[in-house]
Amino acid sequence: MTEDMQESDTKAYVDELCRQARSASRQLAALTNEQRSAALREIASRLVEAESLLCQRNALDLEAGREAGLSSALLDRLSLNPERVQSMAEGLLTVADLDDPLAGAIDRWRVPSGLDIEQRRIPIGVIGMIYESRPNVTADVTALCVKSGNAVILKGGKEAIHSNSAIAEVVTAGLHAAGVPETAVQLVQRTDRETTNELLTRDDSIDLLIPRGGPGLVRAVAERSSIPIIKHYEGVCSVYVDESADLASAADIVMNAKVQRPGVCNAIENLLVHAEVADRLLADLTPRLQEAGVELRACPRAIKLIAGATAASEDDWSTEYLDLVLAVKIIDSLDEAIEFINSEGSGHSDSIISSNNDNAERFLSLVDSAVVYSNASTRFTDGFAFGFGAEIGISTNRIHARGPMALRELTTYKYVVRGQGQVRD
Amino acid sequence: MTEDMQESDTKAYVDELCRQARSASRQLAALTNEQRSAALREIASRLVEAESLLCQRNALDLEAGREAGLSSALLDRLSLNPERVQSMAEGLLTVADLDDPLAGAIDRWRVPSGLDIEQRRIPIGVIGMIYESRPNVTADVTALCVKSGNAVILKGGKEAIHSNSAIAEVVTAGLHAAGVPETAVQLVQRTDRETTNELLTRDDSIDLLIPRGGPGLVRAVAERSSIPIIKHYEGVCSVYVDESADLASAADIVMNAKVQRPGVCNAIENLLVHAEVADRLLADLTPRLQEAGVELRACPRAIKLIAGATAASEDDWSTEYLDLVLAVKIIDSLDEAIEFINSEGSGHSDSIISSNNDNAERFLSLVDSAVVYSNASTRFTDGFAFGFGAEIGISTNRIHARGPMALRELTTYKYVVRGQGQVRD
Repeated sequence: MTEDMQESDTKAYVDELCRQARSASRQLAALTNEQRSAALREIASRLVEAESLLCQRNALDLEAGREAGLSSALLDRLSLNPERVQSMAEGLLTVADLDDPLAGAIDRWRVPSGLDIEQRRIPIGVIGMIYESRPNVTADVTALCVKSGNAVILKGGKEAIHSNSAIAEVVTAGLHAAGVPETAVQLVQRTDRETTNELLTRDDSIDLLIPRGGPGLVRAVAERSSIPIIKHYEGVCSVYVDESADLASAADIVMNAKVQRPGVCNAIENLLVHAEVADRLLADLTPRLQEAGVELRACPRAIKLIAGATAASEDDWSTEYLDLVLAVKIIDSLDEAIEFINSEGSGHSDSIISSNNDNAERFLSLVDSAVVYSNASTRFTDGFAFGFGAEIGISTNRIHARGPMALRELTTYKYVVRGQGQVRD
Repeated sequence: MTEDMQESDTKAYVDELCRQARSASRQLAALTNEQRSAALREIASRLVEAESLLCQRNALDLEAGREAGLSSALLDRLSLNPERVQSMAEGLLTVADLDDPLAGAIDRWRVPSGLDIEQRRIPIGVIGMIYESRPNVTADVTALCVKSGNAVILKGGKEAIHSNSAIAEVVTAGLHAAGVPETAVQLVQRTDRETTNELLTRDDSIDLLIPRGGPGLVRAVAERSSIPIIKHYEGVCSVYVDESADLASAADIVMNAKVQRPGVCNAIENLLVHAEVADRLLADLTPRLQEAGVELRACPRAIKLIAGATAASEDDWSTEYLDLVLAVKIIDSLDEAIEFINSEGSGHSDSIISSNNDNAERFLSLVDSAVVYSNASTRFTDGFAFGFGAEIGISTNRIHARGPMALRELTTYKYVVRGQGQVRD
C-alpha cells in the first residue's frame, strides 16, 4: 500500500470501530441492569471454559516477549495461567453482583414554573481505554463498562495482542449469547501507532479516554488527544509524622506505605517528620527500613540522624521512585508539612500520623490531594479497599473523578424535565 | 522589545498570574462560607458606589467600539448604565445568599478495614474564564468563583478592557476590605493573543478552563488548550410533536422555543412533527411562525403543507441558526424522532410534546442530550430557570458537568479517610 492508501485505510478502520461503538452505546442505554449483569455472568462462565485456549494464545505473547527481551517482571505481568483466568472470571461475577450504578435519581426537585427536574445518572457513552501488558485488564474493563452501560474501545499493548484477542473473542461470544450488542466491547486489532493516533482525534465518537500505563504512555496520549482524558498519573505520596503521633503506629504505617509494594502509585516517596519526634522515630524506623532494603535520602538535618543516608537533592522531593527509595525531611510545623506536600507532591494520596485531632483535621482540610488520610497507610487508595468492588484506575485529574475510579465514575448525568405545557416568559 | 524578550516577558507575566492564583486558591480553601459571602456583599456595595466611574470607563470602550465599527447589537451588549450596574450588584447579593456549595459530605461510609471514608466537596482550585463583550460576566463569574472557593483568572475581550478593568478594580478593593486574598480574582490586563495562548498551556496552574463566547472562540481555545475545558458550545435543539400531543399546547411551545429569543443556544432549530398530526399542527402554526418573521425550511413532505417554505438541505438539520429560521421535518414514529435527534442534534436540549406517557418516558430515556423535556419549551435550560440562582454557562461536555452550570459544578471532591493505625495486608 502507498502511504496515502494506508492512511485512508486506517481512517476507515477507525471510522467503523467508532460507528459500531456509538451504535452499541445507544442500545446499551436501553438495557436493564439484569441484562447487563447477565452478559457479564455469561462471559465469566465462557472464560473458565476457554481456559486452556486462553493459555495457549497467551503462550504466543510470552514467546514473542522472551524473544524481544522483556524483563521477567514484564513477562510475569503478561502471563496467564488457570488461576489468573479463574480470577478474571471471579472479577466479572463480582461486578455483575454490584448494585446498578445507573439506578435512582441523583437529585429531583420542582421549580416555581412547575417543571419537575430530575438529575438522572446515565452512562458516559463510549469509553476509550489504552493500556499495556496485563491481559486481565481486558476482562476487568469489559466488566466495568458493560455494567455501567458504556460501550468501550480497548487498545491493549502489542506485547499482549494474542492474549487480548483471545479474551475479546470470548467476550464477543458472551455478549452475543446474552443478547447484548457485540460491539459494546471492541478490541482494536491493529497495533500500529497510526491507528492509536487516529483514535485520539475522535472526540466526536469517544466520550472519555483512560490511558493506563507508565508516565510515558499517559503523557503521549494526553499531548495528542482531543478527547477528554482521565489520567492515571504519578503518585508522589508522603506520610507526615506529627509531634503528637503514636510513634510505634507511625513506624508501622511508614513501613507499610513504603515497603509492602513499592512499585505502585499509592506507595510513599517522602517521609516528613516533626523535629520534636525525629530522633525517636528515626532511631526505631531507620534500621527497619534499611533491613527491608530501603535506600534513604535525607535533608541536611535528617542526615545527621540516619547512618548511611545520602543527601537528598531538590529533585528528590518530587520524584516518584516506584522503588525502595525514601526521601526523609525534618519539618518544624504542621503548616510547613502541608505547604511542602501541596508544592512537592502530586496530589495523589498523603497521610498524617497524629494523636492531635485539630492537627489531623487541619491536614485533612488543607492538603489538596485526591485522598488524604489520618493515621492510616496511603496504600489503601484503590477501588477495592474503598469498597467499590472493582477499579478501572486511580484518577489524578481534578474534575469528574478523583482517586479510585469504578462504576460510579463511569457515569455522568442528564436532566430530565417534565412539564405541563410550560413556556418561558 | 525583541521577539525573544517579548516572549519571555509574556511568560513572566503569566507565571505571576498563575502563582498568585494558586496561592489565593489555597487561602480560599481555609475560609468559611460567611467570609466568602461577606466579600461578595462588600463588592456589591462598592459597585453601586462606583456606578458613575464604571459608566465613564465603559464609555471609553463604547467609543473605541464605535470607531472599530462594532454592530449596534454588540455595542448594546458592551454597554453599562446605572440599571446594569445595579443588576450586577444584585447578582452578587443573590449568590452571597445561596447555600454554601461546599457544605456537608457528598457521601460517607466505613469499610471493613475500619477506615472511615468521607467524600468531601471542595473547590476545583483555579478556574480560567475566557469570554467576550459583556462586562457583567466579570462580576457574575467573580460571584460564582469566590462563593465556591475558587480562584479565577479572567480573560475578557479586548473590546471591553476598560469596563472590565474598572469592575476588577472594585472587586480587588472589595476582596481586600473583606480580608479575602485580592488575587482570588485576577483580570488579565494584556489583550494580545500571545498572553492568551500562554495561559492555555498552563495545565499545572489552571485546573479548569471555561471558554464562553461564539463557536469560533470555543473551538480556538479547545484546539490549543492543554487544560481541561468545559465547552459552552452549540445548541442544535429540537421539539418533537408526537401524534398524541395537545396541538394547541404544542404550537405555543414551538412558538416560544423558536421566537421568544432566537439568538440563544436553548432556542430550537428543528421542528419534528409526527405524520398523523402534521397537517393540523402546521395549519395553525405556520401563519403564527411566519407572522413572527420565521423563515421555514422543510423536508419534501412538509413543504407540501407549508406555503412559502423552502426546501431544507441536509446541512440544515444540524445547523445552529441563532436566528429566525426553523427547519421542519415530518416523522413517522417516535423512534425515528429519537434517532434523528441523536444523530443531527448537538446534545443540548430537546423536547417531546406528547399526551402519551410511555412515549414521553421513552423519549426522555433515549434522547442523549444534557437536558430532555416533556411538554415544555427548551428555553428553560439555564441556571436561573433550574433554580440554581446563578449560572456560569451551559455545558455541552459529557463529563463533570452537563447542562446549566452554577456553584455545584464549580466544585469537585476529595476523599478524607480517618484511620486508627491501619496498614495494608
